[in-house]
Amino acid sequence: MTGPLDDDSTDPESLALLRLIAAGGSSAVRCALIERFGGAARVLAAGVAGWRDAGLPEDAVAALSAALSAAVAPPTAIAWLREPAHHLIGWHQDDYPPLLRKSPNPPLALFVAGDPSLLWQPSIAVVGSRGPTPGGRENARDFARAFVASGLVVGSGMAAGIDTAAHEATLDAGGRTIAVLGTGPDVPYPRGNTRLHARIVGAGAIVSEYLPGTGPVAFHFPSRNRILAGLSVATVVIEAAERSGALITARLASEAGREVFAVPGSIHNPLARGCHRLIRDGAGLVASAQEVIDAVSPQIAALAQDLQQQLGAPIQPAAAVGTDARSGSGVDDPDYQKLWRALGHYPTAMDQLVQRTGLTAAAVSSMLLLMELDGRVFSQHGRYFRSR
Amino acid sequence: MTGPLDDDSTDPESLALLRLIAAGGSSAVRCALIERFGGAARVLAAGVAGWRDAGLPEDAVAALSAALSAAVAPPTAIAWLREPAHHLIGWHQDDYPPLLRKSPNPPLALFVAGDPSLLWQPSIAVVGSRGPTPGGRENARDFARAFVASGLVVGSGMAAGIDTAAHEATLDAGGRTIAVLGTGPDVPYPRGNTRLHARIVGAGAIVSEYLPGTGPVAFHFPSRNRILAGLSVATVVIEAAERSGALITARLASEAGREVFAVPGSIHNPLARGCHRLIRDGAGLVASAQEVIDAVSPQIAALAQDLQQQLGAPIQPAAAVGTDARSGSGVDDPDYQKLWRALGHYPTAMDQLVQRTGLTAAAVSSMLLLMELDGRVFSQHGRYFRSR
Repeated sequence: MTGPLDDDSTDPESLALLRLIAAGGSSAVRCALIERFGGAARVLAAGVAGWRDAGLPEDAVAALSAALSAAVAPPTAIAWLREPAHHLIGWHQDDYPPLLRKSPNPPLALFVAGDPSLLWQPSIAVVGSRGPTPGGRENARDFARAFVASGLVVGSGMAAGIDTAAHEATLDAGGRTIAVLGTGPDVPYPRGNTRLHARIVGAGAIVSEYLPGTGPVAFHFPSRNRILAGLSVATVVIEAAERSGALITARLASEAGREVFAVPGSIHNPLARGCHRLIRDGAGLVASAQEVIDAVSPQIAALAQDLQQQLGAPIQPAAAVGTDARSGSGVDDPDYQKLWRALGHYPTAMDQLVQRTGLTAAAVSSMLLLMELDGRVFSQHGRYFRSR
Repeated sequence: MTGPLDDDSTDPESLALLRLIAAGGSSAVRCALIERFGGAARVLAAGVAGWRDAGLPEDAVAALSAALSAAVAPPTAIAWLREPAHHLIGWHQDDYPPLLRKSPNPPLALFVAGDPSLLWQPSIAVVGSRGPTPGGRENARDFARAFVASGLVVGSGMAAGIDTAAHEATLDAGGRTIAVLGTGPDVPYPRGNTRLHARIVGAGAIVSEYLPGTGPVAFHFPSRNRILAGLSVATVVIEAAERSGALITARLASEAGREVFAVPGSIHNPLARGCHRLIRDGAGLVASAQEVIDAVSPQIAALAQDLQQQLGAPIQPAAAVGTDARSGSGVDDPDYQKLWRALGHYPTAMDQLVQRTGLTAAAVSSMLLLMELDGRVFSQHGRYFRSR
């Protein structure tokens, strides 16, 4: 992860990654090369001969070579990255969100404005119509508030209507929200959400695979939906017409192996039709947020286990409360001790914990999740403190 | 089938059947004996030795023997049967409804007040809460009207609320309705439905397995629901609380291999909860009656095919419109010609057609169904006429 820099120079790896992003083309090809060579700068250094040696088909070699010859790291993106709380996370970097990594067709990189550790937290996508009924908007708020109360992150697409209601209710309740944009991370869309965009940067995370400055383009929105679906443990559709973007997100979530839930409604409400369609097609019918939470608790436990394995930083649970995976780990782990010292009895923000421990945001995030599950740590309004 | 009699004597078979009904006990045992000996009078004549020879276990022989020694054909039932449009259909009789015969635990016999040929028509059960919302009541009416418009019979349990709305809307639309009671066929329940009871006798069919004069008994109502489910091609639950009789009917319908549908509603409507439970458990979510009709059209075609095979009275279709089963049959079938002559270009009631042709109500009913499917016959307000 590349964050705000103290001096004028952007690190070469980020510059190389920006150039690979600007080149465009298949994410899969560029991700594969990055994985093969161990970084963006190394992909560029390997050149045509190296890519060929790596087994890249000749037409893909030619396409990437042509695209890169015209691509530079965009100055606007370089400038954006120098701002505080602006981050770029590449496919090869440890902070790349693990659930998104497992999804089909993951993006090469993410621009994040705000707190990138949220992308490691279990989150639920709350999506729906841009023009919901008052009841649908209220349901979106109710579900979001209930997810916040359970310590879950709420994701959405910052569209008008249900998305906006979900983000706002989450922030109003002191919760953490992720907005995945179809524009660049610095382009609020729709324009009416300029203030919401700023609020989310301050208390959540704005996520986009598009270069800073990228305006709204119709085909980017379904693509945005795939990232939202991929980041989320589950997707809840609150209200949706028979054909709508929310149904695309739901389909993508289902293809990513994530649970999809839909809220039923009156048969006389046209905005219940999309939800009814989803339920007929196999989505779970949910009448309350608690039903979603109950249904996904195994996935959340599995996510915690994955994070633990990936980090190799096992933590001894205070008591057996969930998965077997947490057994056999030790509270005497040095990182754990470091984090425990960094925590106090007053709520502390994630950013401060990262700063105090020198650990990555991802490591701190997953350790906190495990400690929350163990009951050692409480979180309140996105801040953490010892429970004893 | 035993109908109104011209003289004072009730036929011996009906008297024997009434005595078997009055004896009570397992329907399955008595149905098996009737099937083995070919009639109720013959079961009584066979006696203990005959039942034993037939392989009936000794404890069942003893129980039936004891029960019959105390049982007589009840005079109230004999008197009821002498009234016009009152019928008793035993398990061994050709008029016993074929769908009910295939259901688990079918009743030994049915008392029918009204038109017994309706029990051979494809019918949809419309059931739900006794205390529905105004919207639920309106949905019940809408669904019933749409079923009538498609020529389907609407069944229900004549309870307050959804059941009553379904029966009334069906009759108001000139359709045919079956009410399955948990009381005797002559005991309107609830009392507020006394007038509806009389309307159904006049323009539909009241069905009960209980002897005339039997008052409301709590455990009879779930048993009533099994008959409603067994008679129906499908069951639609309009509105239901989390625990309700409608859910029992739905479960029984599902156990009988019949399709179950439920109408979703707002998550804030407590009477949508039962429907949502059913949908979670596998019932079809339906937002309109047409969806039900589309879903059950194969079952209706199969029913027509069954009736045809059972009657051995194949009818040549005017054109290929549905099942293959109707091919290879002949319009020169004598019964078909008889029925065609009995039909005219003015709507004629089923009772009149039975009288004119001398055929059984079941035969006329299934032939009319096939001719309707072929487009040779139209029905309107429960009456039939030639379409050409």
